[in-house]
Amino acid sequence: MTGAKLQLTALPDIPMIEPGDDLAGVLIDGLRRADIVPRDRDVLVIAQKVVSKAEGRYVPLAGIVPSTRAQQLAAEVGKDARMVELILSESTEVVRYRPGVLVVEHRLGFVMANAGIDQSNITHPDGQERALLLPRNPDASCAQLKARLDDAFGVDLGVVINDSFGRPWRNGVVGVALGAAGLPSLVNLIGQPDLYGRDMRVTEIALADEIAAAASLLMGQTDAGRPAIHLRGLAWQAPACSASALLRPRQIDMFR
Amino acid sequence: MTGAKLQLTALPDIPMIEPGDDLAGVLIDGLRRADIVPRDRDVLVIAQKVVSKAEGRYVPLAGIVPSTRAQQLAAEVGKDARMVELILSESTEVVRYRPGVLVVEHRLGFVMANAGIDQSNITHPDGQERALLLPRNPDASCAQLKARLDDAFGVDLGVVINDSFGRPWRNGVVGVALGAAGLPSLVNLIGQPDLYGRDMRVTEIALADEIAAAASLLMGQTDAGRPAIHLRGLAWQAPACSASALLRPRQIDMFR
Repeated sequence: MTGAKLQLTALPDIPMIEPGDDLAGVLIDGLRRADIVPRDRDVLVIAQKVVSKAEGRYVPLAGIVPSTRAQQLAAEVGKDARMVELILSESTEVVRYRPGVLVVEHRLGFVMANAGIDQSNITHPDGQERALLLPRNPDASCAQLKARLDDAFGVDLGVVINDSFGRPWRNGVVGVALGAAGLPSLVNLIGQPDLYGRDMRVTEIALADEIAAAASLLMGQTDAGRPAIHLRGLAWQAPACSASALLRPRQIDMFR
Repeated sequence: MTGAKLQLTALPDIPMIEPGDDLAGVLIDGLRRADIVPRDRDVLVIAQKVVSKAEGRYVPLAGIVPSTRAQQLAAEVGKDARMVELILSESTEVVRYRPGVLVVEHRLGFVMANAGIDQSNITHPDGQERALLLPRNPDASCAQLKARLDDAFGVDLGVVINDSFGRPWRNGVVGVALGAAGLPSLVNLIGQPDLYGRDMRVTEIALADEIAAAASLLMGQTDAGRPAIHLRGLAWQAPACSASALLRPRQIDMFR
């Protein structure tokens, strides 16, 4: 089990990230600036936006020609038709919509608003409008970052990419794991007895999502200067599995 | 904004809680044992189970006579009909069900499995089966605990009661706030510009839920010895509001 303390530290002075930047190098420098000597099972949580930026996932809105379907949907939800075109092109299914809200299944399997495409906190170097897509493969991005970080420090780290998702039934967004490497994103407790020898009724914990939410507390929303959080104190017995394990298959989901 | 570090500490050696126990006193002792001198805006997160136990929310199953509706539903979901009767009596609506799963709206407004009623980790002193209901009013429980703790230490604390909820679309449970006092459960960012002067598109953060999830990382599920977590390092400008602010009104929810 996890120890009795958890410490989360925002890496200081992370610079603005541009396409092609060496994000692993930026994180390594950030850890050193924070005087953190990483240990096995420390976890680094990185905001989706900086990963997307480093991977050059910008799309200029000017070049987008909305389909008829995107134009119709844009009128119904009250969004820019080019944005809706982009959202649809990133999605496999429109799950729900109404004025102001467009919930889709992203091609990676996330059920989320606007396919995770963001127009806020995005630079406009020439006044050009552009949007930022999710990383192409967040689990693979985590694995690549982990390989670089593990190598730099000679340790076995966990890496999580987080984003903020709205939810049914509850107001407000919470941090959620888009990708993970080096830790069990989903912990299966099946067969573990509780204190009184009964089988546990809660059988799976979304560990990577709880890590993502904890890191969000430090990241904030308006402060893009804190996109990387170091977490120390977790322990786990379960084998590592990627964040894709957190996606419930559509066939067994009751809320589509 | 929140500082650059968060520290979470599990209060050591919290004893098994029984109905009528002075939970605030137990927490005060636990903080002292941990050598924690509480400060303004420290947050204490307490697991639902111990609050329910202290409030005597046990119900013996033997005395429950299931209605015809409970019997029919129990057969469909494959649960004990007395448990289903209890779940229905705590609920205002059955939201979804299928074998093994019964999602309801609890009378307090939470959409959750089994109305939050738990049969695991519950003592059976005479071999009698019993279930544990949610606290009668978790926000009020938080306010009462906060008053006692604030008074004992001369500070202004946040208090959260958490539980683990399943979610649509994603596997595994995450910590969620059932009740809160002394902190903004929901933080409204409307009108705050981002780094480039655009209005924020994400306008509300479920702060108390992120706190609840972070604390869950330390509590674990099988280890009932860690039901209270102290959190230091958060800051907020928003006014305090209870966890009921996290409940989305049914009329504007798209997933009922």
